[in-house]
Amino acid sequence: MNITVWNEYRHEQENEQVKAVYPQGIHEVIASFLSTEHNVTTATLDEPEHGLTERVLGQTDVLIWWGHKAHEEVDDDIVARVQQHVLDGMGLIVLHSGHFSKIFKSLMGTSCDLKWREADEKERLWVVDPTHPITTNLPSYIELDKEEMYGEHFDIPTPDETVFISWFEGGEVFRSGATFKRGNGRIFYFRPGHESYPTYYNEQVQQVIHNAVKWAQNTHTPKHHYGNAQPLEIIKPKNDDSQ
Amino acid sequence: MNITVWNEYRHEQENEQVKAVYPQGIHEVIASFLSTEHNVTTATLDEPEHGLTERVLGQTDVLIWWGHKAHEEVDDDIVARVQQHVLDGMGLIVLHSGHFSKIFKSLMGTSCDLKWREADEKERLWVVDPTHPITTNLPSYIELDKEEMYGEHFDIPTPDETVFISWFEGGEVFRSGATFKRGNGRIFYFRPGHESYPTYYNEQVQQVIHNAVKWAQNTHTPKHHYGNAQPLEIIKPKNDDSQ
Amino acid sequence: MNITVWNEYRHEQENEQVKAVYPQGIHEVIASFLSTEHNVTTATLDEPEHGLTERVLGQTDVLIWWGHKAHEEVDDDIVARVQQHVLDGMGLIVLHSGHFSKIFKSLMGTSCDLKWREADEKERLWVVDPTHPITTNLPSYIELDKEEMYGEHFDIPTPDETVFISWFEGGEVFRSGATFKRGNGRIFYFRPGHESYPTYYNEQVQQVIHNAVKWAQNTHTPKHHYGNAQPLEIIKPKNDDSQ
Amino acid sequence: MNITVWNEYRHEQENEQVKAVYPQGIHEVIASFLSTEHNVTTATLDEPEHGLTERVLGQTDVLIWWGHKAHEEVDDDIVARVQQHVLDGMGLIVLHSGHFSKIFKSLMGTSCDLKWREADEKERLWVVDPTHPITTNLPSYIELDKEEMYGEHFDIPTPDETVFISWFEGGEVFRSGATFKRGNGRIFYFRPGHESYPTYYNEQVQQVIHNAVKWAQNTHTPKHHYGNAQPLEIIKPKNDDSQ
Repeated sequence: MNITVWNEYRHEQENEQVKAVYPQGIHEVIASFLSTEHNVTTATLDEPEHGLTERVLGQTDVLIWWGHKAHEEVDDDIVARVQQHVLDGMGLIVLHSGHFSKIFKSLMGTSCDLKWREADEKERLWVVDPTHPITTNLPSYIELDKEEMYGEHFDIPTPDETVFISWFEGGEVFRSGATFKRGNGRIFYFRPGHESYPTYYNEQVQQVIHNAVKWAQNTHTPKHHYGNAQPLEIIKPKNDDSQ
Repeated sequence: MNITVWNEYRHEQENEQVKAVYPQGIHEVIASFLSTEHNVTTATLDEPEHGLTERVLGQTDVLIWWGHKAHEEVDDDIVARVQQHVLDGMGLIVLHSGHFSKIFKSLMGTSCDLKWREADEKERLWVVDPTHPITTNLPSYIELDKEEMYGEHFDIPTPDETVFISWFEGGEVFRSGATFKRGNGRIFYFRPGHESYPTYYNEQVQQVIHNAVKWAQNTHTPKHHYGNAQPLEIIKPKNDDSQ
Repeated sequence: MNITVWNEYRHEQENEQVKAVYPQGIHEVIASFLSTEHNVTTATLDEPEHGLTERVLGQTDVLIWWGHKAHEEVDDDIVARVQQHVLDGMGLIVLHSGHFSKIFKSLMGTSCDLKWREADEKERLWVVDPTHPITTNLPSYIELDKEEMYGEHFDIPTPDETVFISWFEGGEVFRSGATFKRGNGRIFYFRPGHESYPTYYNEQVQQVIHNAVKWAQNTHTPKHHYGNAQPLEIIKPKNDDSQ
Repeated sequence: MNITVWNEYRHEQENEQVKAVYPQGIHEVIASFLSTEHNVTTATLDEPEHGLTERVLGQTDVLIWWGHKAHEEVDDDIVARVQQHVLDGMGLIVLHSGHFSKIFKSLMGTSCDLKWREADEKERLWVVDPTHPITTNLPSYIELDKEEMYGEHFDIPTPDETVFISWFEGGEVFRSGATFKRGNGRIFYFRPGHESYPTYYNEQVQQVIHNAVKWAQNTHTPKHHYGNAQPLEIIKPKNDDSQ
């Protein structure tokens, strides 16, 4: 499977605290643990065409997206191109603050707004769909000692499947793992991963992402026949006064 | 309830056959049968701002949308404005060829593509969710002697509720009545209504639209509190090596 | 609207602590606050036919169910009768430990199992579907100082709508408000209400139950025509070797 | 994968016309085409325990069910046993008239009623979820020259996924392929297969059943921890007057 990990890659270059956690960027950490099983490349905002050329997307089975402070700098034409590839069958994993990315909002049709708080607080992600393939090899919950909080209401369409619900130390809950089908594409939103915490080094978080890319890969992309269609049955002539 | 009926209003002015069916335009027929119960206004493509100013939308409880040949002429800024009002709680009824409108595609996130055929063929819309309020006062199916065919696959997200499924004389089926929640807004897609047929004079079709506007009206629009949130519980200090 | 409140009514007679909270039984408290708007009667386990005769159910628009320690004493024939009335259009509100009642399990088809703990702990029910009529006149969450904990995984079919998700002081989450359509009947499961706490005196809990009975009332119960059906179209004779 | 094909096996022994189509019974035809890829055994109504002993079910990954005229003869204890195995993770494929089987009704909670007609009529099953694995290697529709008609309304809970919708020559439609998760088990209802027609010899029908057993196999059955749970966080003592 060919995976492309896209990262905004700004916090890690501009903020010493974040750089200390992800010296080569969040994308390199994710690419690293996925590359044990898959063919993984990376792309970032400041590359030409954000690294998401037609050629790159044409060869991508699953795209992973991390963005936060520069959503507005992502070119609308590139967003439309990514959306088309999702509809054509490319899987998409949207991480954490990617909830506010143009690509996620375009596919959802809603504001994707939520509550948030940065307070070094504990998060516990409970599995609520325990036979879902995205929960393979996981215990009944994942505990993260320090994370940013995201709280309900999360303004998304009703997910096709709700896989995780988070408990936060400060008193909120959140639908932290949610799947959506759009066109031929499978989309998974996964909440954790604030840039200042070492969340993507957590083995259970890595297991979720491993499971998610397998789930999102579309091994069966049918060719639809849209547009003008010949009748399959005889259509009787109607008289002019009918109806 | 305040209803705005929006119509592209081109076929009726350019095509003699269509003009014969809807001399004042499709919007006037729909406005007419709804005005027995509601406060109804109309808006059309060629008015300034397509007739969909902030003031008009701000006073609209439910917007009805019919468009076909000029989807591309609808201004992107007006589409964004309509979408914002839907997310803020305005109901939206999308009719027939409106499946390809910018506003419907923006809210769905998919291509909204389908099969079609113009062949004076019979359509029978079966009720598959018989206790749904949109089916109030309807028999188990609605029969239309002559309609355009729309056939599956219909490229939409899985509807929250599938209310009608159509049978077509030429051999196809279609999910002809489908509901979606987006933000605070309720959306109903209803298939029938090709411009060359007198579909909107059909009393059962009128009953569906009557039911749909009642269903789509949002009498309860909460004020969400999004953004930065104070904790509701005490968050314990974490040591620096945690996680 | 005619509401019947059914209660097992054993804890309140056998346990002094519970009797202190609900001297006349949980059913009387619920009946009391609903009777300001509706015609309410009560029924309990130890009445003949558990108080759920054909006559009673035939006059009931919405049935509320509280049971806990004596689920097995509910007669299977009465359960089948209640189920039939739900399928025929009677609304059903299942409260708290009713998750394990025969009637709820019969309608769900699953074990309806969950985690639990009695520890005087805080519960906070977050609204996750804020335009749902069951959340009318509620703030963004309901806080209960002391309740029994119910935790995921909750073994139910995927709800048609998830209205509330609970946060618990001890670290768990739970889908605390969930709707299901079965036949012509609307079902709402609502989590709070352990017998030793004064939960049903809480005004916001009462608001939810007020909202829920309105939502569950089926004002539109169609008569379906099941069974052998005459064709609506001509079916061509097939030759014997066909297919 | 271990598959058990269960068949009522009465029509084939009592009716010459049916015997001519399925001389060894429907189960043997289904077992035959599945045995090219899987380890398949059969079981029938008139065997001891209907052939569905604990040992047999304990070794079954996916159970296929065909029944029609003798649903009432299936022992309630065996139905409860099958249901428990489904909830524990065994896949279940319910075929055609199995919609009225005790096991399907127990898992659905509804009447599972529908319209029907035996008139040698054409059925066309349209794919409405074209990336679903159950549609792998299928064209956009399956055409069957002669089948029994099943028509809406089909009284089932809203399916998790609707995979096929049928068009019938006589004018009806039907949700012919529908998936449901119950506990750890995956369930697929597939409409075609009246006993007097050679439907299970059709290669595309066989392809659907091949796809369905793969989809229904649960390779990941978690052990849930239900019941009394220790707190994961400290629960503060409450004063007696709280709430």
